[in-house]
Amino acid sequence: MAKAPKANAVVGQSGGPTGVINASLVGVIEEAHKHPEIENLYGAIHAVEGMAKDEFIDLKKLSADTLKEVAASPCSALGSSRKKPNEEFCAQILDVFKKSDRNIRYFFYIGGNDSANTAHILNMIADKENFDIRAFHIPKTIDNDLLVTDHCPGFGTAAKFEACALMGDDLDNRSLPGIKIDVIMGRHAGFLTAATALGKTRDDDGPHLVYVPERPVSMDKFLSDVDAVYKKLNRCVITVSEGICDADGIVWAEKLKEGVETDAHGNIQLSGTGALADFLAQQVKDNLKVKRVRADTFGYLQRSFAGLQSAVDVDEARRCGREAVKLAMEHDNGSVAIKRLGNGKDYAVELFRTELSSVAEKTKSMPDEFINSEGNGVTKAFIEYAMPLTGGLPKTHYLGNYPRI
Amino acid sequence: MAKAPKANAVVGQSGGPTGVINASLVGVIEEAHKHPEIENLYGAIHAVEGMAKDEFIDLKKLSADTLKEVAASPCSALGSSRKKPNEEFCAQILDVFKKSDRNIRYFFYIGGNDSANTAHILNMIADKENFDIRAFHIPKTIDNDLLVTDHCPGFGTAAKFEACALMGDDLDNRSLPGIKIDVIMGRHAGFLTAATALGKTRDDDGPHLVYVPERPVSMDKFLSDVDAVYKKLNRCVITVSEGICDADGIVWAEKLKEGVETDAHGNIQLSGTGALADFLAQQVKDNLKVKRVRADTFGYLQRSFAGLQSAVDVDEARRCGREAVKLAMEHDNGSVAIKRLGNGKDYAVELFRTELSSVAEKTKSMPDEFINSEGNGVTKAFIEYAMPLTGGLPKTHYLGNYPRI
Repeated sequence: MAKAPKANAVVGQSGGPTGVINASLVGVIEEAHKHPEIENLYGAIHAVEGMAKDEFIDLKKLSADTLKEVAASPCSALGSSRKKPNEEFCAQILDVFKKSDRNIRYFFYIGGNDSANTAHILNMIADKENFDIRAFHIPKTIDNDLLVTDHCPGFGTAAKFEACALMGDDLDNRSLPGIKIDVIMGRHAGFLTAATALGKTRDDDGPHLVYVPERPVSMDKFLSDVDAVYKKLNRCVITVSEGICDADGIVWAEKLKEGVETDAHGNIQLSGTGALADFLAQQVKDNLKVKRVRADTFGYLQRSFAGLQSAVDVDEARRCGREAVKLAMEHDNGSVAIKRLGNGKDYAVELFRTELSSVAEKTKSMPDEFINSEGNGVTKAFIEYAMPLTGGLPKTHYLGNYPRI
Repeated sequence: MAKAPKANAVVGQSGGPTGVINASLVGVIEEAHKHPEIENLYGAIHAVEGMAKDEFIDLKKLSADTLKEVAASPCSALGSSRKKPNEEFCAQILDVFKKSDRNIRYFFYIGGNDSANTAHILNMIADKENFDIRAFHIPKTIDNDLLVTDHCPGFGTAAKFEACALMGDDLDNRSLPGIKIDVIMGRHAGFLTAATALGKTRDDDGPHLVYVPERPVSMDKFLSDVDAVYKKLNRCVITVSEGICDADGIVWAEKLKEGVETDAHGNIQLSGTGALADFLAQQVKDNLKVKRVRADTFGYLQRSFAGLQSAVDVDEARRCGREAVKLAMEHDNGSVAIKRLGNGKDYAVELFRTELSSVAEKTKSMPDEFINSEGNGVTKAFIEYAMPLTGGLPKTHYLGNYPRI
């Protein structure tokens, strides 16, 4: 391994925002200050788009106070991009990096599996061109669907949002009983929907039913599940991933959308944001004859809400940013991953380097041990896995179950 | 005025939950402990329904630790009800109060204008029957639409939610630019929708357009407003009250629902939770030819989210609960109201008694001075009015506007 070159570095933030992607950015900045090999640290505006357009800001100039505020801010402080660069676009980026006044030899990219792939492609093309670039991926996603790493920065904060949302929503449903359906982000992996169960402390706390994309559910099964809970508790709170499938494996939301295309009367709403929630609510109303049925689709708040970070998540995201810079002093490329060393009260992690190719393009689903046998709830193993990542949840108290006098 | 009787008291929580309705409950409990005139304090399960069914719990037995957790919990810890009791139902309640083992002579009711009316009716019927009951209303609503009081407990916490939501959503929209539409609770009063603007600190922060029910807006005006912002900033964040009206004064959401009734093809989704958001998004897509248009409907999270109280709101809600009990030692009936004594850094309030009839059944709208002349935003006067009630907002930092190097 050659000595780390004295050159400039670039960092970018890619894909959907999270609550702690800026903490990773601050980690990169803090660590870069410690290594004289990194002369300038450029922040790429809107990720690879800014890199290709030579559009950068100077990150080494930022004060400690500014960094503190940045780390506490949700979403991508540098702006993001959904672009998945092909080889041609990567070559364009490398042309900017090679310019004598840029001389960028370090590439740090905070994002999901597509971002790991971008780092991978960029690294391969640079190799072919004999251009020494050190390319690192820093994991980020609310979906928690990256391979290798135990969990992903961004998930803990989003999980805290889901838990707090359902703690409140369940108390709301206790106040005014009925059936409530909440549709949660996560098309392929159910981790975030599963996190809605993290705030349950009382035996009859909701969500009483949790449906993840990993387990298909027929409408008959769904309705009979809801009916059973409602008959027992006179209320029912349900969380459903936006990606849940029918028994035939086809995603419900897609089926609804197809309804649009075959409908000459312009029923555009079935592909709208609330379509799945409204469809499920209507099925419950029609089939179970329950009067008070409500449905919400949580939407973008789940990844962007300000002032609701998990302290554990912030800390780990920051450490991942730092680790990438440290690794770049010793390695040519890599992706930062998290290993869990202890759980519960002994929760602790260490970071390690993994290959870009082992993270690029692939995704992880919920393991079987996290989903109950009925396919309508989470297991204790999931709660133990996810709880430490939230950094702790608020306590609530309900009096309606107290003995009557 | 007769001396306050030595007897039992009841407290109930009515209507839609808020983030601090339990703080008011705890205020009642704390103050009741101080007055030997109040022997037992009964908590009515599900408000007037529990009162009519003689279903109570013992609130004087709760420990300080329990009260602390209750005050920190969103939604109604005793359960709520939407029932608006008529004279007959009130007579039924009084029959329970009169039972020798109940002997309830103090009635505390936490709720909105309907709850003030319930207290009013109950008091009048008791008067007719020569039954000495002291009936008090404690204000609660996220909509902030009660008369007399400067503002209403519950609004500050919901306003904090809206502000944090939009601070995050605006940063999300900066990260991945496009047009974003958020539909906010509040059918008749625009205070909550206006609160989405409280987190704005930078010149180009969103929401860039805010539409409240107090100002009708035609589709042409809406689209031209959005177009103007989008042309200037290449993005646009819009908040819209669920109760906004078309230029003819008819509520948009109702128009969409009528579309359902005249549609033989079962387009049920137009009356769904996301209908208004989806409709507005489709109008923008079709007419402004913008590719990235997203829409969310915030739903029940706005009133129930756990762990996100405004400290100022909690304190005032608690004080309102205490004040009702204090007033009951001196008066026959009344509603607690808030008077603002100073603003900004000198923000302070005092509480006073107002007549039940002055609060009952009526509602307040946003005053003209809080809405800009274009009818698409809020004024500095509104920000100054609402900001202290949030108890402070998180700080965020965006780097994408920094000078390029």
